[in-house]
Amino acid sequence: MIAPNMATMLCFITTDASIEAASLQTLLTKAVEQSFNCICVDNDMSTNDTVLCLANGASGVTVIPGTNDYQRLEEALTQLCAEIAQALVRDGEGATKFIEIQVTGAANDADARCIASSIAKSQLCKTAFYGQDANWGRIACAAGYSGVQFEPGRMDLYIQEIKVLEGGCPTAYEEAAVQSLMKNKDIVVRLDLHDGPGHALFWTSDLSLDYVKINADYRT
Amino acid sequence: MIAPNMATMLCFITTDASIEAASLQTLLTKAVEQSFNCICVDNDMSTNDTVLCLANGASGVTVIPGTNDYQRLEEALTQLCAEIAQALVRDGEGATKFIEIQVTGAANDADARCIASSIAKSQLCKTAFYGQDANWGRIACAAGYSGVQFEPGRMDLYIQEIKVLEGGCPTAYEEAAVQSLMKNKDIVVRLDLHDGPGHALFWTSDLSLDYVKINADYRT
Repeated sequence: MIAPNMATMLCFITTDASIEAASLQTLLTKAVEQSFNCICVDNDMSTNDTVLCLANGASGVTVIPGTNDYQRLEEALTQLCAEIAQALVRDGEGATKFIEIQVTGAANDADARCIASSIAKSQLCKTAFYGQDANWGRIACAAGYSGVQFEPGRMDLYIQEIKVLEGGCPTAYEEAAVQSLMKNKDIVVRLDLHDGPGHALFWTSDLSLDYVKINADYRT
Repeated sequence: MIAPNMATMLCFITTDASIEAASLQTLLTKAVEQSFNCICVDNDMSTNDTVLCLANGASGVTVIPGTNDYQRLEEALTQLCAEIAQALVRDGEGATKFIEIQVTGAANDADARCIASSIAKSQLCKTAFYGQDANWGRIACAAGYSGVQFEPGRMDLYIQEIKVLEGGCPTAYEEAAVQSLMKNKDIVVRLDLHDGPGHALFWTSDLSLDYVKINADYRT
């Protein structure tokens, strides 16, 4: 039950910085947008997800927007949230793989995110990852039905950094090499649309037999 | 790979009515909207779905908008499309159940459809159906995250016509009776929001171990 936005998850972050609540909320919202809201295990959002950040000021370091300390706190918070969000996906129900979906070259970041999310949520992509198959057709299909307009004939797709599609067409890649890399626990899918500066990251798990068992047989 | 809209599916319908192409297209679009676009097996839309309707006029009966014959053709086409769409879901990959999601009392039909679709697509609802559990929490949760605003405290939920939620709270229903009815192949879920005249139907399958096997092990 882990999907954007958030999951069945209660996350408490603490800092000894001295910072105004409104500033801390701004930083946390930005960090969450790039972490907990970029993950998917299944597509079911939970009713009780929470990320709280508490600052007690014990360090005596006052953090004010526009300062170096503010930027450092933003970076630390963003990195921490990304690490926890990734750990959530790795710990997803029945997950055997951790897949990073990178989309670049979209018209804008929102389009990139929509495409990345569509691939990350696709049951067919997720079962193919479980089956350790570099199924570029399913990935291209999920990008295509995302609702974002793009030119498929300019699309390059890399699986584990091997270019499998160039300008929307299969390359002469060595299938055995890709299939061998699909056995890794960590998979990287990169889609470059060559259509603009938009980019996004999404993290997802595979859809395994254990996912179904865990979520179907819980009463027995 | 069957989801709204359509599926990996080529559907050809023929009629011997004599009817203008534009009128037939209008009827077909309306019929498809209430049938092929109201089904889900997984959430993956295919690239090559097609519904075609061909009219050769051999009957000599000319069908013109506004006439009784037009209405009869509309009803027949709608019913035929619904039957084929339901057959598609029953034949879905690994499907062991056929589930009809009925939403009534929404503010409008679009809201009802959005909620019905959200429940129909939920992996957690679909695994619960596979596990033969009347998990009203997952159904209410999927309605809640659909994006539609409604008052949960007015929501009644029926599973196999047994009222399990009234005004958003569990009733004193007999669990054994519901669980026994969940063993049926056909399941009906009815959600009444008591918020307006909007209603919608959606048809979905369960998410089974065989779905994962079929879509993960296809290379071996």
